[in-house]
Amino acid sequence: MIIVRSTAELGRALARSRELGKSIGYVPTMGALHDGHLALIQEAKRRDDVVVASIFVNPLQFGPNEDFESYPRDEETDLGLCEKVGADIAWLPTAEELFPPGFGLTVAVPRLSSVLCGQGRPTHFAGVTTEMSKILILLAPTAVYLGEKDFQQLVVMRAMVRDLGLPVEVRAVPTVREADGLALSSRNTYLSLAERPIAASLFRILTDLTTQLRTESGEVAAVLAAGRRQLIEAGVHRVEYLELVDSETLDPVPEATSGNRLVAAVRVGTTRLIDNVEV
Amino acid sequence: MIIVRSTAELGRALARSRELGKSIGYVPTMGALHDGHLALIQEAKRRDDVVVASIFVNPLQFGPNEDFESYPRDEETDLGLCEKVGADIAWLPTAEELFPPGFGLTVAVPRLSSVLCGQGRPTHFAGVTTEMSKILILLAPTAVYLGEKDFQQLVVMRAMVRDLGLPVEVRAVPTVREADGLALSSRNTYLSLAERPIAASLFRILTDLTTQLRTESGEVAAVLAAGRRQLIEAGVHRVEYLELVDSETLDPVPEATSGNRLVAAVRVGTTRLIDNVEV
Repeated sequence: MIIVRSTAELGRALARSRELGKSIGYVPTMGALHDGHLALIQEAKRRDDVVVASIFVNPLQFGPNEDFESYPRDEETDLGLCEKVGADIAWLPTAEELFPPGFGLTVAVPRLSSVLCGQGRPTHFAGVTTEMSKILILLAPTAVYLGEKDFQQLVVMRAMVRDLGLPVEVRAVPTVREADGLALSSRNTYLSLAERPIAASLFRILTDLTTQLRTESGEVAAVLAAGRRQLIEAGVHRVEYLELVDSETLDPVPEATSGNRLVAAVRVGTTRLIDNVEV
Repeated sequence: MIIVRSTAELGRALARSRELGKSIGYVPTMGALHDGHLALIQEAKRRDDVVVASIFVNPLQFGPNEDFESYPRDEETDLGLCEKVGADIAWLPTAEELFPPGFGLTVAVPRLSSVLCGQGRPTHFAGVTTEMSKILILLAPTAVYLGEKDFQQLVVMRAMVRDLGLPVEVRAVPTVREADGLALSSRNTYLSLAERPIAASLFRILTDLTTQLRTESGEVAAVLAAGRRQLIEAGVHRVEYLELVDSETLDPVPEATSGNRLVAAVRVGTTRLIDNVEV
């Protein structure tokens, strides 16, 4: 595995592959890698000739009171994991090069970015799409691999790539979970021992609700209201949202249809968790 | 000259040139072509192997109460002019293809876009950069040619191209003027016979002020205040702004330095005119 930092090094590392017309699979990460990230790299390895994984805690996607400074960072461990699962190039971009002094661009999909997580994190998705549009133009991969766990991010990224006309395929990879169903997330390390089972109740309740939504059509509002109560009863401190949405527009749907997505964001203690299940 | 409408036709028309590694010069226009546009095409012809001129009245860059509907359109005359000055490909994109239903992207450089013309036209430059980022990614020209008349547009476009990392050179072409100094603009056709000499006073006054600014250093605020009075005395109905700015940041400068830009927007009757002169 080649480790590169500057875009010049990245260009040199990929030059031969580009000449030969090899396909390039790209896995963007913020480090603190877990099996969810590794599944993305493995899927890229399976489908593309060359796999580039990036590790970069993107400052643009953190709000002023969020955990940018405290976000877990462990470069050495992350690089070891990238190599182990077969990444060909690990790219550690620098903020200085991606966002030099005077940088003033915003690339956004405002409507899709303002709903759901966007209500509590109004600048988050614009931070993601600004960074990712720049990186996808620079790297020009064949495909970018994103986890379904961050479902809204996946939808926003698909829209950005399509609307900007970037020649990149966005490939979704299913969420990887702990044995008890908790979706893997770098932020799970924030959970206390007592909070851990409460966090696991999120997926269990989402799965139950999905079964109800599939069978009890026409009762969406009632199922969601009951779901919010169940989450609180399970020990969740706050339900930021629990919604059934169209999987492309993210619009709330009044009646469950195949392909809809049940999406949720909750607080367990001070830790914010998100998850989603297809209906 | 080849005339194309769809991006597929455009791709085919350029395929051979791309294979041969020819340089592609791109001139974006909204039609209603005048000698200012033709100077852009001629400069592209001089510097690049293949010249693509587009004609497209971009709906995104018009505000809700602006002249999108009434903006002058004359495709046949425009195509004749493109051919006459040597464009190789005239591209007439469709709104349906550039901005299909569900299009929700915004590409913007908010700070540079909110000052000067951005104060009266808050969505204008985001409309320009959203359209142009998409077109530059799609067309992938070697260089894009822009007139200095729309100076803020030039600065905003340079910032967008740089921040997004697009491999395109932005080339500025000096403003083309009538014999009396009036900067050519498609909107000059809106001027009545009586308004025409008032419109011409804009450039004369800007030139006078520039001479003063070059010689009377430290008196910027006084020179600009006198300039605003002169414009009104010349018959201009409203001075939207008259500022001396840094030519990259567009920040007002308290003291004139070589390379600063004196920029103005005025109303002559109901017609909005802009112009600028280098100090």
